[in-house]
Amino acid sequence: METTNVKAFGTHAADAPLIQMSIERRDVTAKDIEIEILYCGVCHSDLHTARNDWGFTVYPTVPGHEIVGKVTKVGSEVTKLKVGDFAAVGCLVDSCRTCSSCAQDLEQYCLNGWVGTYNSEDKHLGGMTLGGYSEKVVVEEHFVLKVPSNLDLAATAPLLCAGITTWSPLRHWNVGKGSKVAVIGLGGLGHMAIKLAKGLGAEVTLFSRTPNKEKDALSLGADAVIISTDEAQMNSVSGKFDVIIDTVPYVHDVNPYIGTLTISGTLVVVGYLGGLAPLLHTVPMIMGRRAVAGSLIGGIAETQEMLDFCGKHNIVSEIEVIKMQDINQAYERMLKSDVRYRFVIDMASLKR
Amino acid sequence: METTNVKAFGTHAADAPLIQMSIERRDVTAKDIEIEILYCGVCHSDLHTARNDWGFTVYPTVPGHEIVGKVTKVGSEVTKLKVGDFAAVGCLVDSCRTCSSCAQDLEQYCLNGWVGTYNSEDKHLGGMTLGGYSEKVVVEEHFVLKVPSNLDLAATAPLLCAGITTWSPLRHWNVGKGSKVAVIGLGGLGHMAIKLAKGLGAEVTLFSRTPNKEKDALSLGADAVIISTDEAQMNSVSGKFDVIIDTVPYVHDVNPYIGTLTISGTLVVVGYLGGLAPLLHTVPMIMGRRAVAGSLIGGIAETQEMLDFCGKHNIVSEIEVIKMQDINQAYERMLKSDVRYRFVIDMASLKR
Repeated sequence: METTNVKAFGTHAADAPLIQMSIERRDVTAKDIEIEILYCGVCHSDLHTARNDWGFTVYPTVPGHEIVGKVTKVGSEVTKLKVGDFAAVGCLVDSCRTCSSCAQDLEQYCLNGWVGTYNSEDKHLGGMTLGGYSEKVVVEEHFVLKVPSNLDLAATAPLLCAGITTWSPLRHWNVGKGSKVAVIGLGGLGHMAIKLAKGLGAEVTLFSRTPNKEKDALSLGADAVIISTDEAQMNSVSGKFDVIIDTVPYVHDVNPYIGTLTISGTLVVVGYLGGLAPLLHTVPMIMGRRAVAGSLIGGIAETQEMLDFCGKHNIVSEIEVIKMQDINQAYERMLKSDVRYRFVIDMASLKR
Repeated sequence: METTNVKAFGTHAADAPLIQMSIERRDVTAKDIEIEILYCGVCHSDLHTARNDWGFTVYPTVPGHEIVGKVTKVGSEVTKLKVGDFAAVGCLVDSCRTCSSCAQDLEQYCLNGWVGTYNSEDKHLGGMTLGGYSEKVVVEEHFVLKVPSNLDLAATAPLLCAGITTWSPLRHWNVGKGSKVAVIGLGGLGHMAIKLAKGLGAEVTLFSRTPNKEKDALSLGADAVIISTDEAQMNSVSGKFDVIIDTVPYVHDVNPYIGTLTISGTLVVVGYLGGLAPLLHTVPMIMGRRAVAGSLIGGIAETQEMLDFCGKHNIVSEIEVIKMQDINQAYERMLKSDVRYRFVIDMASLKR
């Protein structure tokens, strides 16, 4: 298979910084689209993968799965986009396309294993897929999204992961006009959850541990902020929320939030991978038919739906644009939650 | 308020056996129905309340909330039943009737607190409500159910708690033809879950820790039994079930079952009140949009729906009929799971 070398930023080891490297991209096959990457958002998963926090990173690895760019080449059978169009790629670049999940446009739950944009087995070139911290990427057209023309390209990039990760549960649990939604945590995911739930017509409350996020939350569209450590404030929202989107990425007690769900309400964990500690107590769940669920990114059709919705409602992420060369410092700042609310790499910086 | 003394079986202390006692029943008010109790099922909650396992028993207490009997008197405004009709009473004898839950026929989730058939505040007589281990009970007609004429009366009694507790989640999570349902635990609740899910047209699997329940489960209508301690058997049902009804009444690891749920499937805890230990792990939930939920008995309309369904499909509980005087021994046998599958008291024994 013909390939081209392109510049990228990645790392050779968990304890090594990201550095510039050269990687291969395949030439387009009949259904492929080649994209010149203009912007790439920086997700916490990028950092976890670079540093092997989950234990399954294969090095060298190139992170990045919030990709926005311009089409530079298309295969002979491609109909979705043409050269010069803006295009986006999220967390998925392939799936089996035949299982019951794929048949329902739920590629993120592919029963035969989807292919992630980085650190997944690359079916074309062997080795592992390499992500969006690079000049170009080649992706099968089914997994390429169209970008609404009115949106800022850099601020669109985080929609591809932070956006769809919160959009999918909002849609699955039927959030719309009149819904009461709460969001736990105000980071990359949380700020998108507020914007998207608000866009869907819901009344939106942010749960925060400290009062210093109130101003930001309200300016992002939240109707109220509840300090989760304040018992009186927590009691004031007892039984209120139809859906809670829990974006907190570390272990935390979800029990206090269960009682703020309405009868038959659901708390959806999207940020934390691990055991629920302290123990999740069944009584508040049984006494109100309440549920705790998980949700993973979203399917391709749903991602396009989200992008189109954002285009219509002029919703983008709040971002801080950085150069590719500043990625290691950006990771350090992310570890301190020092970002409002998403770093986005201007890939022009890689051309120098 | 006029009252009548009736014979009952109850206890004066957590460590005392149940003994015969005399209790008061109010005379019927305009909307009340007086029922001569013919049969009363014996629920684990009866035992927990008698022994103050949950810490909120007020003594003397008279358990019993699986009541079937005959109408002996009706108030002037009663239209639902007439003297001589068979009637049933379950876990609820009152609720606020005005909150959003009550307005949706979800009296079991009454936001102002429902009144249990025993050990709840009695709004009419003061003190606490006293249950079905007695000759008669007086209940507001809204909370009295009609009994299908074709069903065995004794075997109908457990439908009022064990039946509705499993029926309600089966219905809420849309179990029907083509659904794949699993049941964890084969006791009073579990055996009803199998019968009801099967009646609804589902393919039903029992999860059991030991092979010795297989024959019983299949004869109750289960299509298959999976030994939950056998890894190969567990792997064989990976991703299979739309709904799992978890009837186990003690702490147990739910994690191995999560992976047997299909994408977007739900495990419903109906038997265990407490913390989920070992820690409930979010990864299998996130990777398949799976949920863990709780569910409590059912509303009055739903209970009538279940009874009518059981009448139509000839579904009753498997029971062992006992005399009222044998209740203490029955409790001891229940603690050893030595009952297939529900004790029902023949209240004629109390008349002697």
